[in-house]
Amino acid sequence: MKDQLPSFTSQDIPLEDKFNEVRALSERLCSNLTAEDYLLQGMQDTSPPKWHLAHTTWFFEEVILKKYMPNYQEFDQKFSYLFNSYYEAVGSFYPRAQRGLLSRPSVEEIFNYREYVNEHVLKFCQTLECKENQDILNLLVLGCHHEQQHQELLLMDIKYSFSLNPLYPALFLEKKCSEKPTATKNIQSDWLEIPSGLSPVGTNIGDDFSYDNERPQHLQYIYESKIAGKHITNAQFLEFVEDGSYKKASLWLSKGWHKINKSQWHSPLYWRKLDGQWFEFTLFGLNPLNMNEPVSHVSYYEADAFARWRGGQLPTEGVWETAARLYGAMDNCGFLDAKTFHPQVENDMASSSSDLMASKKFYLGNVWDWTQSSYLPYPGYKPFEGLVAEYNGKFMCGQNVLRGGSCFTPKNHFRKTYRNFFYPDDRWQCSGIRLSTTSIV
Amino acid sequence: MKDQLPSFTSQDIPLEDKFNEVRALSERLCSNLTAEDYLLQGMQDTSPPKWHLAHTTWFFEEVILKKYMPNYQEFDQKFSYLFNSYYEAVGSFYPRAQRGLLSRPSVEEIFNYREYVNEHVLKFCQTLECKENQDILNLLVLGCHHEQQHQELLLMDIKYSFSLNPLYPALFLEKKCSEKPTATKNIQSDWLEIPSGLSPVGTNIGDDFSYDNERPQHLQYIYESKIAGKHITNAQFLEFVEDGSYKKASLWLSKGWHKINKSQWHSPLYWRKLDGQWFEFTLFGLNPLNMNEPVSHVSYYEADAFARWRGGQLPTEGVWETAARLYGAMDNCGFLDAKTFHPQVENDMASSSSDLMASKKFYLGNVWDWTQSSYLPYPGYKPFEGLVAEYNGKFMCGQNVLRGGSCFTPKNHFRKTYRNFFYPDDRWQCSGIRLSTTSIV
Amino acid sequence: MKDQLPSFTSQDIPLEDKFNEVRALSERLCSNLTAEDYLLQGMQDTSPPKWHLAHTTWFFEEVILKKYMPNYQEFDQKFSYLFNSYYEAVGSFYPRAQRGLLSRPSVEEIFNYREYVNEHVLKFCQTLECKENQDILNLLVLGCHHEQQHQELLLMDIKYSFSLNPLYPALFLEKKCSEKPTATKNIQSDWLEIPSGLSPVGTNIGDDFSYDNERPQHLQYIYESKIAGKHITNAQFLEFVEDGSYKKASLWLSKGWHKINKSQWHSPLYWRKLDGQWFEFTLFGLNPLNMNEPVSHVSYYEADAFARWRGGQLPTEGVWETAARLYGAMDNCGFLDAKTFHPQVENDMASSSSDLMASKKFYLGNVWDWTQSSYLPYPGYKPFEGLVAEYNGKFMCGQNVLRGGSCFTPKNHFRKTYRNFFYPDDRWQCSGIRLSTTSIV
Amino acid sequence: MKDQLPSFTSQDIPLEDKFNEVRALSERLCSNLTAEDYLLQGMQDTSPPKWHLAHTTWFFEEVILKKYMPNYQEFDQKFSYLFNSYYEAVGSFYPRAQRGLLSRPSVEEIFNYREYVNEHVLKFCQTLECKENQDILNLLVLGCHHEQQHQELLLMDIKYSFSLNPLYPALFLEKKCSEKPTATKNIQSDWLEIPSGLSPVGTNIGDDFSYDNERPQHLQYIYESKIAGKHITNAQFLEFVEDGSYKKASLWLSKGWHKINKSQWHSPLYWRKLDGQWFEFTLFGLNPLNMNEPVSHVSYYEADAFARWRGGQLPTEGVWETAARLYGAMDNCGFLDAKTFHPQVENDMASSSSDLMASKKFYLGNVWDWTQSSYLPYPGYKPFEGLVAEYNGKFMCGQNVLRGGSCFTPKNHFRKTYRNFFYPDDRWQCSGIRLSTTSIV
Repeated sequence: MKDQLPSFTSQDIPLEDKFNEVRALSERLCSNLTAEDYLLQGMQDTSPPKWHLAHTTWFFEEVILKKYMPNYQEFDQKFSYLFNSYYEAVGSFYPRAQRGLLSRPSVEEIFNYREYVNEHVLKFCQTLECKENQDILNLLVLGCHHEQQHQELLLMDIKYSFSLNPLYPALFLEKKCSEKPTATKNIQSDWLEIPSGLSPVGTNIGDDFSYDNERPQHLQYIYESKIAGKHITNAQFLEFVEDGSYKKASLWLSKGWHKINKSQWHSPLYWRKLDGQWFEFTLFGLNPLNMNEPVSHVSYYEADAFARWRGGQLPTEGVWETAARLYGAMDNCGFLDAKTFHPQVENDMASSSSDLMASKKFYLGNVWDWTQSSYLPYPGYKPFEGLVAEYNGKFMCGQNVLRGGSCFTPKNHFRKTYRNFFYPDDRWQCSGIRLSTTSIV
Repeated sequence: MKDQLPSFTSQDIPLEDKFNEVRALSERLCSNLTAEDYLLQGMQDTSPPKWHLAHTTWFFEEVILKKYMPNYQEFDQKFSYLFNSYYEAVGSFYPRAQRGLLSRPSVEEIFNYREYVNEHVLKFCQTLECKENQDILNLLVLGCHHEQQHQELLLMDIKYSFSLNPLYPALFLEKKCSEKPTATKNIQSDWLEIPSGLSPVGTNIGDDFSYDNERPQHLQYIYESKIAGKHITNAQFLEFVEDGSYKKASLWLSKGWHKINKSQWHSPLYWRKLDGQWFEFTLFGLNPLNMNEPVSHVSYYEADAFARWRGGQLPTEGVWETAARLYGAMDNCGFLDAKTFHPQVENDMASSSSDLMASKKFYLGNVWDWTQSSYLPYPGYKPFEGLVAEYNGKFMCGQNVLRGGSCFTPKNHFRKTYRNFFYPDDRWQCSGIRLSTTSIV
Repeated sequence: MKDQLPSFTSQDIPLEDKFNEVRALSERLCSNLTAEDYLLQGMQDTSPPKWHLAHTTWFFEEVILKKYMPNYQEFDQKFSYLFNSYYEAVGSFYPRAQRGLLSRPSVEEIFNYREYVNEHVLKFCQTLECKENQDILNLLVLGCHHEQQHQELLLMDIKYSFSLNPLYPALFLEKKCSEKPTATKNIQSDWLEIPSGLSPVGTNIGDDFSYDNERPQHLQYIYESKIAGKHITNAQFLEFVEDGSYKKASLWLSKGWHKINKSQWHSPLYWRKLDGQWFEFTLFGLNPLNMNEPVSHVSYYEADAFARWRGGQLPTEGVWETAARLYGAMDNCGFLDAKTFHPQVENDMASSSSDLMASKKFYLGNVWDWTQSSYLPYPGYKPFEGLVAEYNGKFMCGQNVLRGGSCFTPKNHFRKTYRNFFYPDDRWQCSGIRLSTTSIV
Repeated sequence: MKDQLPSFTSQDIPLEDKFNEVRALSERLCSNLTAEDYLLQGMQDTSPPKWHLAHTTWFFEEVILKKYMPNYQEFDQKFSYLFNSYYEAVGSFYPRAQRGLLSRPSVEEIFNYREYVNEHVLKFCQTLECKENQDILNLLVLGCHHEQQHQELLLMDIKYSFSLNPLYPALFLEKKCSEKPTATKNIQSDWLEIPSGLSPVGTNIGDDFSYDNERPQHLQYIYESKIAGKHITNAQFLEFVEDGSYKKASLWLSKGWHKINKSQWHSPLYWRKLDGQWFEFTLFGLNPLNMNEPVSHVSYYEADAFARWRGGQLPTEGVWETAARLYGAMDNCGFLDAKTFHPQVENDMASSSSDLMASKKFYLGNVWDWTQSSYLPYPGYKPFEGLVAEYNGKFMCGQNVLRGGSCFTPKNHFRKTYRNFFYPDDRWQCSGIRLSTTSIV
């Protein structure tokens, strides 16, 4: 018998608290923005901060309040059109490429919108109508996760927009510095072993939240593999760059080769070479490139070419998820909760102990791992029902899966079955490289 | 002997007063903008309000202070790059298409920049170095006119950006209403006659300010012509629309026909048909279309097609300037100074008197008149010297001349020899239609 | 001990005979072309017939003769540049989009080129140097398969180019008519059952030829599935069209929805509706649409949307290959050898017998089956060595695998492990739809 | 009373002879083409040779035979669609960019089409219906001039298409060599003087043929000017190139600067630098650049930048036509009739005599002279009537006038009032540079 709101995840705080926490965090992440910053849309794929704040609110209003709450009065009729992202079933929507032109409604009105919807959601949560309807409860949890997903987008998008400004604005002022140990280029040391066999991948509907695209759990046959516990560092990637790899066709996928030539890519998205020194644009502004940090903001093409150059390959989803299950420890350090807002050096244990297990750690967070797997439905996949049927399924074409979370991902939004996805030439997400090898004998 | 600063124009107030007045007006025009509005760049051809405020300041700093004022310390080194519009001689410049991404420097910093430069310009004006150097004095006057030119752009650009927002924001709240007399479709009544002969066109360097492109004065042989004293009204243009003219290839220039089909143009830029009623987007928001006002925001293609449909033609520069010299009376009503921020009904005199001269009025202002003349150098044309050589000459290709000023043009920036220029498919400027006919027998 | 040339496939004729046969067929397929037809390049993705004839010859010359035959004199130095398709390792190559501009060298010269290379290949085949070098023998076999692959492209490309000509030219005059039985819309009848379990996919290096991308053979865990023995017919696809499916966003992948709207797709590539009747462009010109033939020339988006509309899904490679192994009978009828040059009605057995096995037939050929699997390396994949390393591997991004061959595929070029690949919006290949369902309980 | 067909021009042979001569020449110019060459369309702006042959025939059929000849049976109904260039009034037409895909109808069929139409035109010419109808006679003359205009396009277009082939095909084999005298860089020597005053420009309907765009004759006021008798040579243009002019923004119109950077232009269209030597692609293949020949195939931007660099300017139409009237001698040498198929050195007289008149020669032909005048209607302009109303008028936007004819222009198609027109970035026409200066004091 269900007599209270479900918790956010099985081990977690009550939904209302979660709702409050999530909604507050989105706003807190924006606290250093100027009014003008709220409008920035660096490219078509990104959205302005204010739009993220409004759209996550729209989700609660459109999907829950307007549909289920009796006598609910919508905050503003036009918002249904303005802040719909891509739900065709809801109706037409404001062109994505023009989101940066919505100076009105103002940031203030959007905060009012948030408050109005917050109040109504919380009020609705108290009603029996809500408490006894599992569909609604599920949608509330989904709405929270949806907003957490947008928290990552919010930071990615601000970073991208700021990077186009020659003044290199900083979103955050105090950088928590990574330790800077001596660079170690030997990546062999942290290979983790994956045995062959039938391995469960994905999850089922249960106490813990999951998106439809992670379901159902199913078996994949995995060949004996090795996978790196740590990510490729800037130092390692710099070797690749300095070896002239961006000029060697033989290292690249055909589409990658065309892309780097057409777009004149010579290094990861945020690297800058000034007077012979390498710098990196971060949410703290332009900083000298820290060689021991994981390389970030690389496209699939660059990750794939690096693997070819290095002699390994990118993991498949099956190998990755098996490794995460076997070796992945969920500590805060690689996630948004650590508030580093930047990938950290992955050497905590190795440097402090000679413990064998230390070298068996599968680092989660910091940067998303490009997998070689395409983003496709699992066998038996069923999309969410209702409006949110468009949430995931319709994007299952032409994209690659990324796994593992990043320093922009809220930790309790993440799970080891989480499937993120981007196009192979995208690199404004905080994506990095983890190598693996598979031998089939 | 010259012992004081030159006046802005021959009959006008002293330069320093003018400078103060012009600089203040730019800011006053922005007083209803929100911080977010300042960042709007509706398309690549337009610039954000804050950029206009900064660039006009840059002009005084780059062209005068940095070059001539002893020991001048520039406000911020990066501004030379950020706020250069297109002067190749100054060096590289920030990409035009990305001006809307400069959330930093903030609006506040830009106002500080303006104040800093204002103070220095005024201080410099007091020095002998400035007062005795006619080149500098000329550049100061040019800087004022440059800023006035940007005042028109500022309003045009805001209007365009606002028009893309489905909330139809209003920049100004109280609309000065045009009178709404009965529509009169008979445009024959106000033909003005232009005799044949050699007619002076353009002006020379003299007491009154002019751009290089208006010079030198030269003779053109004009054939006997008629030209309308008033502009084509919305009512008249609506007839053209309702006659199916946007679907009749025979009315259009070949490039115009392709443009209207590709861009799906069916009416002037700001017309909207909602539930069978015609509305027009203005700086006061969306209003019912006033049938007696001059039609505005049409491209050259539309103006030309209208003329072909109606049986007339667009005037040449020579005919237009001759008419303006013979019949043009400079009153405030069509210019920015009248603060209507929208083209007004042109019937003041005709409706109030039976005076013959009344019907001989050549209305200036309200909307720019597309001419059929291409924007080309006059015989003997010499560009400005120095940095400002790029001001006009390098754009003399592919554009058409527009004449007469608009409700966005400061009146004392305007003169009858003024040549404005836009590409034939541009229509975000406040452009309208004036017909003429020429017979050569 | 190897004392003679290898056979083309294990059960097959000697390599020299095969070489002669393949080389002759390419020319025979072109025998109805006019000199002008040889130059046609309907779009960037297609190549002119003469270019196919030259490029397949270039392959033998560049990869074998120039590298291995002592004292070989190349036919024409410039051909190395002109007829290289995309091998970066060979050097730069003539721009793909301009192949249709190579009126010179003439068709006659290209036939001379073919003859010259043929003679040298055959002469080289007699030498010990060739006979004792397995690498060379493998390349000769590869060269033949390469040319067979281009025989399919040749027909696809001619069909596309001809389709753009309002005269609807026919490449072949006598159409072997399919029988036209009563349309049967019940596709349930021919579901084939695939048991769950570990299923071998792919092949290994062995007596039979295979491309690198089919190797190595490996296990995939397959869930219990059903797969259609026959392809979706024109009648069935017409139902989908007439149900308004091209206007229903909910049926389409997001990229598919954008594509069909942008490109104004309303039906398969070669369907035409004239005066209310459906026609189809074929290599025999424009013919009434035969409702019982398999639908052909659909994109992945259309195949996927059809499956969603119908309630099934597209097979994965694993399910498809298992079905082909269990039920696929290789008869001529669906392949190029049948010389129908068009997909045939799939009812030969069902109509002639009540045999249970008849309904268990898995039709190969006719049209390629879109699978939902992305074109990715198998675990343990190793590219060919040398120049031909670029043959397959570098295209493993963004494409989908197609299986099963078509009426344009030479039968002895095909094998059940064959992986064809195209982008999801491609549809000029002879692609159709086969449905499957998988249940995971 | 008119009892015979009009002559082609007032001093000229009878119309029927002219018709035969023109029609034959088009075919003779193609006599070295292979069947495949006939299909070449190097870019969207150009047309395949066979299309030119068909379209000029279509003109006679569509505009004259179908409209005026009793009981005329059209050769093939589809040709009306296939070979209409851009006449909207005739109906829809085959997309221009795809003309190179019309392998059918074959070249042979098009020659049959030509013969069929020729026979009918000649037969119709014998009838009273034709002889007594001045409209028809005028259209026949227009049809001949139309075809002559296409003779120039035919050669321009073949040259362009051939230039894209790395084999550098030659259309003609024996080059009539220009003499190669010592280069003389002193261009001051051949300035011709133009007095100020009212100067007649254009022509009227009369005995001599003219296009509508040359009419009516009208007065322009011309300032005292000088204009070069000869064209800028390759040697002179090479100085400009070697001075680094393609890298100096200050020399270029703004649109020109963008164009040369975007398209990576470093020299005229057909110049090639191989191993440090300059070559030029011609209709005779690739030849060493002859320094004394007029530079050809430059865009307006390049002509304008050269003039700015050199210190002169491009002539206006008024100055040009006045010079042609005063100094232009019509000899064969610069026109198609001389069969040089390439611009010739302009030194015949100057080198052989010290005659004052020799240095006063205004060379016509060889290369078209870019004028700074935009292509606009003359005062009182009236388009042709009927279908041919679209012949000229609808292109009067965005183009520049070129004057003077070229080595590809049939001499008796040319007249001194002839106005050719191209977009400022076009350079596949045989365009060169003639300087002038105008002083207004």
